[in-house]
Amino acid sequence: MTAPATTPTHPLLDAHAGVLDEIRQALASRGWYSRYPESPSPRVYGESAAADGLAAHEAHLNTAYAVLSTQPTDGSVVGSEVSPYGPTLGVTYPALDVDAGLAAARAAMPAWRDAGPQVRAAVCVEIVDRINRRSFEIANAVMHTSGQPFVMSFQAGGPHAQDRAIEAIAAGLVEQERVPTSVVWEKPGRDREGNPAPTRMQKDYRLVPRGVALVIGCNTFPTWNAYPGIFASLVTGNAVVVKPHPRAVLPLAISVEVAREVLVEAGFDAALVQLAPEADGQGLARTLAERDEVAIIDYTGGPTFGAWLEESAAAHGTLVYTEKAGLNSIVVDSTDDLRGMLGNLAFSLTLYSGQMCTAPQNVYVPEGGIDTDEGHLGFDELGDRLAAAVGRLTGDDAKAVELLGATVNDQVRSNADSLASIAEDAGGRVVLDSRRVPHPAWPDAVVRAPGLVAVDVAREDVYTQECFGPVGFLIRTASTEQSLAQLADTVREHGAMTAAVYSTSEAVLDAARDAAAEGGVALSENLTGQIFVNQTAAFSDFHGTGANPAANAAYTDAAFVANRFRVITSRRHV
Amino acid sequence: MTAPATTPTHPLLDAHAGVLDEIRQALASRGWYSRYPESPSPRVYGESAAADGLAAHEAHLNTAYAVLSTQPTDGSVVGSEVSPYGPTLGVTYPALDVDAGLAAARAAMPAWRDAGPQVRAAVCVEIVDRINRRSFEIANAVMHTSGQPFVMSFQAGGPHAQDRAIEAIAAGLVEQERVPTSVVWEKPGRDREGNPAPTRMQKDYRLVPRGVALVIGCNTFPTWNAYPGIFASLVTGNAVVVKPHPRAVLPLAISVEVAREVLVEAGFDAALVQLAPEADGQGLARTLAERDEVAIIDYTGGPTFGAWLEESAAAHGTLVYTEKAGLNSIVVDSTDDLRGMLGNLAFSLTLYSGQMCTAPQNVYVPEGGIDTDEGHLGFDELGDRLAAAVGRLTGDDAKAVELLGATVNDQVRSNADSLASIAEDAGGRVVLDSRRVPHPAWPDAVVRAPGLVAVDVAREDVYTQECFGPVGFLIRTASTEQSLAQLADTVREHGAMTAAVYSTSEAVLDAARDAAAEGGVALSENLTGQIFVNQTAAFSDFHGTGANPAANAAYTDAAFVANRFRVITSRRHV
Repeated sequence: MTAPATTPTHPLLDAHAGVLDEIRQALASRGWYSRYPESPSPRVYGESAAADGLAAHEAHLNTAYAVLSTQPTDGSVVGSEVSPYGPTLGVTYPALDVDAGLAAARAAMPAWRDAGPQVRAAVCVEIVDRINRRSFEIANAVMHTSGQPFVMSFQAGGPHAQDRAIEAIAAGLVEQERVPTSVVWEKPGRDREGNPAPTRMQKDYRLVPRGVALVIGCNTFPTWNAYPGIFASLVTGNAVVVKPHPRAVLPLAISVEVAREVLVEAGFDAALVQLAPEADGQGLARTLAERDEVAIIDYTGGPTFGAWLEESAAAHGTLVYTEKAGLNSIVVDSTDDLRGMLGNLAFSLTLYSGQMCTAPQNVYVPEGGIDTDEGHLGFDELGDRLAAAVGRLTGDDAKAVELLGATVNDQVRSNADSLASIAEDAGGRVVLDSRRVPHPAWPDAVVRAPGLVAVDVAREDVYTQECFGPVGFLIRTASTEQSLAQLADTVREHGAMTAAVYSTSEAVLDAARDAAAEGGVALSENLTGQIFVNQTAAFSDFHGTGANPAANAAYTDAAFVANRFRVITSRRHV
Repeated sequence: MTAPATTPTHPLLDAHAGVLDEIRQALASRGWYSRYPESPSPRVYGESAAADGLAAHEAHLNTAYAVLSTQPTDGSVVGSEVSPYGPTLGVTYPALDVDAGLAAARAAMPAWRDAGPQVRAAVCVEIVDRINRRSFEIANAVMHTSGQPFVMSFQAGGPHAQDRAIEAIAAGLVEQERVPTSVVWEKPGRDREGNPAPTRMQKDYRLVPRGVALVIGCNTFPTWNAYPGIFASLVTGNAVVVKPHPRAVLPLAISVEVAREVLVEAGFDAALVQLAPEADGQGLARTLAERDEVAIIDYTGGPTFGAWLEESAAAHGTLVYTEKAGLNSIVVDSTDDLRGMLGNLAFSLTLYSGQMCTAPQNVYVPEGGIDTDEGHLGFDELGDRLAAAVGRLTGDDAKAVELLGATVNDQVRSNADSLASIAEDAGGRVVLDSRRVPHPAWPDAVVRAPGLVAVDVAREDVYTQECFGPVGFLIRTASTEQSLAQLADTVREHGAMTAAVYSTSEAVLDAARDAAAEGGVALSENLTGQIFVNQTAAFSDFHGTGANPAANAAYTDAAFVANRFRVITSRRHV
């Protein structure tokens, strides 16, 4: 009466079984693990990789993205991407016919569901491997949609994003494997004569997807922030519709193209991954989010639409994972490596002009200043030293633009222009104005170096809202104790993706750990080298905590994957 | 610079380490596991246990529940419980001062958080062990609040509920243990001379609770449906406020009393578990749900308030686990054990007068009838045979009341009275009217045996709403194929906690498994013995699936626990 337990087979499972073992183990240990080399060096990716990637990118420009025409479409096209470096991309994409697309997604799921978690994971790994081969092409696409500098576009948009994809696959795989396929349940008992007469039942546990998963991409990290949701949903059996930011379509179009290609080669339906590009202002995310077929939403973007999603989707019983905005915070108490600290902080403020969701904004410094290996520094002195460090890092235009990239939108540019008025309104001081950096190669790019404004801790009106882009606040507090309390309070209330502390005192570090636990934010301590507060490593660092308003989830913990599938039991006497 | 990894120690951890091992393993295997004997036999619980429990119950009657006066209270008392068997309980409870109670809950959490998952699990096991010792007292309290018959009150309100508590503890423990306490992350690298120069960081992972957890109890299963949420939240570090149904306070008052007692003995703050009793109609659940301190809500009850909770709480970022209402469904196709099938079905319909969230309501039978080991039976014949089986089971008043218990509220009584009008409106037939059964011991109890109405499958208006209590529908379909399609469709749309199928055909059973997967409901196949569709076993059967509108969660899977705590990383170079 019972179906035989079958071992799943698939050529890709044969090919990637070893990888699945590796990533299961890496996830459990949380030690260092990376599948994809982060160096864009020709020694790693091949002598012609960079040129080939650029050529592939250029071949997309001013063309219709034809390969996606296998998706259901009404024939209309969209596409209005303009590089933050200046050029119009000119790529057009076929609009997804939403009714037909969602129907196709649903129809594709049963075979994908029945393939089981291991086969799904192997297919997903193959997709990411094949995405990796197009890293240079994607890097160019990320650069010319997000405005990231090229090396960052390569790393964050390529291997680092791919490692996060693999992490999500691992988390989803392991989570599904925790539920046995089948068990014989034997309840002890006796018959009327007192002889053992157990009740035996076979119980089969079948994993089922929730439905269609919608992934809403963002402008600044089109791949890095989309891959975790895409692969977490896909590996758990759901079909995925990817709705890219209208200004950052190309990197996800390439990714979706690869996914569909691999799915078909592997014997599955391409409709398991579809791209839903939209014209700027079309509101397609809202349309899709309200569809009954959509059961899961992953979102990275502004807090207003994020909050709407959380409320509206809950009314439909939809799972929603959001990453919105926050006040990334640093407490400076003391250091035994002033140069290292200043260099590290300056880099964190500078990288991509502070346009990372993890870039620091609020730097708390006690009014009495701090002790350092170069002697005591007053509050203003420390500010000036930090400004000088930023100045050194960004003083040379050609080198600076390779760190700063280009500003992604007018809001960022407006924030960069507002330092003097912020300082004036707040009775503060512009410690460093945001320099306009001419880009030697891309004259139309608007590049801004970070600026710093010193304000008093009392002026919460100034620094408890996110000021996205190259703007940092040096916040004058009465003491490190107050700095830590303010960190905990503002993060708990307004959210943060990252926090850091500099101190030579074990007591202060302990207090900082408590403040981070209270605020619900991950803490980096005394970073003075080549690890930066803005960066997290897949398989080891969680990105976000889900414990403060900045994000209701973390890449990638069990909570991010456990609810993307459900278990259906069937039981019978045996 | 790094805190030494400490092994948690606590006398209760020494005492229960073996249990924790057992339950970790039981949860992973999903085989049979029970910590608490389900038999109320004197040989198991002691010769005087039943009498002592009854005496303890009677000592509560017409008194103030004084032991809870250690909770913050404004001095007012509430309490209006009336037994479905007739008597007024007369127990009064001190109202919780909400502001002070929530403040106390928050203040109690840091020490509980820092105790770590193993100590918390051990303390929780001790609480449940001590609750188990009061099983007979709780059984009387459950009987006289829910109206369950005594043996069921003992089993479902006692050991079975306690096993579900242990299961939640196990799930929460294992989930937390999946995150390592600490790891050294070592990223390979080389210095400028090309020598190996790895980057090494220590990362500590600290588990933090989300906040105060609110558990909203129900009238029919005050302990069974409350314990999973209570212990899942408690073991993951949260403080819990238990808001019992105003007509079923006593079982949870006793449970909370025990929890507080054990917590204090174990060196923790009693405020980690508090009771928030309310007067009927006071709306305290809403008040509590809207408080910022409340981060998690577990709810069992009606769909209207459940839906409000899901929407309102999401707007606050609160996690909400709900179990509401559904259409439990059975497809009858054929059987090789007609007597067994009829007996099993009759029992499932009869037990507690169908007032279980898992009791069957919709029984689909093809109009052409079914093949059985006693020959072919027409649709009407099958109905009559089922009616006769119910009649045999409930024909003797004294025996019947020990299965039926008492009706819990006027809605159930009204539903029981409505069979004739339902049949008339629907053009159907009353196959069996709901008999009023006089209770030999409790003359004021309103006891109703199950009734059955035959209706056509087209009359969805009749059977696609929950008709809670002793009402079953025999739904005439064109074929088993239509029965299964209708099961899948109605469950997906309206929800269900359980489903079952009877068939001698492997093809039909396979199709039923697919229909159950489509509808998102657990399936019992060909139950003809002493396992019933209404019953689930802790550690093996999930209660609910989270895959249909009846409940957004399951007792107890990873998704039920993984998001009740968060992980805060701190990292530093080493």
